[in-house]
Amino acid sequence: MEELKIINQIKSKRTFLCIGLDVDLNKIPKFLLKQEDPIFSFNKSIIDSTNKHCIAYKLNIAFYEAFGVKGWKSLEKTINYINEHHPEIFTIADAKRGDIGNTSKMYAKSFFEELNFDSITVNPYMGKDSVEPFLEYENKNTIILGLTSNEGASDLQLRRTSDNYVFIDLIKSSKSWINSKNLMYVVGATKTKYLEEIRNIIPDNFLLIPGIGAQGGNLKEVCEKTINNSIGVIINSSRSIIYASSDESFSKAAEKEAIVLKNQMEEILIQSNLV
Amino acid sequence: MEELKIINQIKSKRTFLCIGLDVDLNKIPKFLLKQEDPIFSFNKSIIDSTNKHCIAYKLNIAFYEAFGVKGWKSLEKTINYINEHHPEIFTIADAKRGDIGNTSKMYAKSFFEELNFDSITVNPYMGKDSVEPFLEYENKNTIILGLTSNEGASDLQLRRTSDNYVFIDLIKSSKSWINSKNLMYVVGATKTKYLEEIRNIIPDNFLLIPGIGAQGGNLKEVCEKTINNSIGVIINSSRSIIYASSDESFSKAAEKEAIVLKNQMEEILIQSNLV
Repeated sequence: MEELKIINQIKSKRTFLCIGLDVDLNKIPKFLLKQEDPIFSFNKSIIDSTNKHCIAYKLNIAFYEAFGVKGWKSLEKTINYINEHHPEIFTIADAKRGDIGNTSKMYAKSFFEELNFDSITVNPYMGKDSVEPFLEYENKNTIILGLTSNEGASDLQLRRTSDNYVFIDLIKSSKSWINSKNLMYVVGATKTKYLEEIRNIIPDNFLLIPGIGAQGGNLKEVCEKTINNSIGVIINSSRSIIYASSDESFSKAAEKEAIVLKNQMEEILIQSNLV
Repeated sequence: MEELKIINQIKSKRTFLCIGLDVDLNKIPKFLLKQEDPIFSFNKSIIDSTNKHCIAYKLNIAFYEAFGVKGWKSLEKTINYINEHHPEIFTIADAKRGDIGNTSKMYAKSFFEELNFDSITVNPYMGKDSVEPFLEYENKNTIILGLTSNEGASDLQLRRTSDNYVFIDLIKSSKSWINSKNLMYVVGATKTKYLEEIRNIIPDNFLLIPGIGAQGGNLKEVCEKTINNSIGVIINSSRSIIYASSDESFSKAAEKEAIVLKNQMEEILIQSNLV
């Protein structure tokens, strides 16, 4: 488990920001397209300019896979670059994988061994035996989808069950899975009314929270309902940081956006007596 | 939509067998490991020997991804080989992807455009807006997880809702999604008691059914409850066919196993007056 890696960083960097590297070739500065590996060049610049202001990078695997073998090469180069130059940073493969046991085992091998990510996001629709092959890696974290920030969350996650909601029942079940202390949960920032209940069920686990900013979530409100004694919260921001500008100074612009969020987070940490 | 491609094949080949190419380097014949691309060599032999006895190949993406860039090369070579030499065969990327809209769009691009699969399996936990980017491809099929064959299905899919079960509510909702006629559903062969209800809700859509054989499902019983006037059923078998033997004659052994299943299916088709 890598929680200490996260907590130490939060205390020294005074931020709990995760930056999402969702690299879309249509959105990156045009001049980069002439380079041999535009996706990696873009990521390298963003990482170089933002690593002091964040504690984690989340790589959305879809954006690499969309380019097949070439995309996987960019993915490998990016994770290797982070692990080599910034080993203190917590890395998240945002892959949303999950399948029957022997297949989940292969996905775990891919992201934990082959690519050496610290954590992976996993889709829990297939239940316990589809998630445990990831949890078996004791020094890694498995981040399951709890309540997602999108509209479609109401199609399944927010259905009423005899006890509660589907996603609440699921979070409760997950506490009995092996190494469940290494579980983290994706919870959308747009779903503030459920945050306190979630925190009550899993007081100690980290929450990975997307949906601040562009998607409408409010940082302060979200933190009030979720921060625990070891902070327990990682806030992700992707597009508003990495696409802050599309000209030659894009990495400077990204840094500026990251600092804005970092300063807001520092204030919250001070007010909560956590730094 | 590619249903006609499936139905025409079922009528001419008299089988509705899908073979799962889940290639595990620990299980393939040892002599292949000396070759440059053992996974592709194995697949090519299996495809050459079985294509007359099946209508679809399902490639479990985890087994390729586990080898990073090298694995993606084997994946590309395999799908290209099928598309070039057996364009009549229906191809399934068993990827179980699904994410917010702009991310699902990237996954759809990867499997439908970059790799040119006919269909992909999608995890519906995030609901309508996570699945529709796949459904937007009118000439492709999207296969969502309905009720899976593993134990963990009870953790979420088989929870009781105010109306029914989670997975039943989900299947009902999915009927209102765009191009829902192009939806297919994964339904485990081990879950026979729910098959009739599923078929009543979606009388026309194809079901992709794993879990026959090794996992305990009974072919005849499953077919009795699911076959419709256009057959409407694809039965997947992976390990019992592709690992039928681990010596030099492995592809012959795989063919033999495929023929056993094909003959059982032919009998069912005749009894149902479908050929």
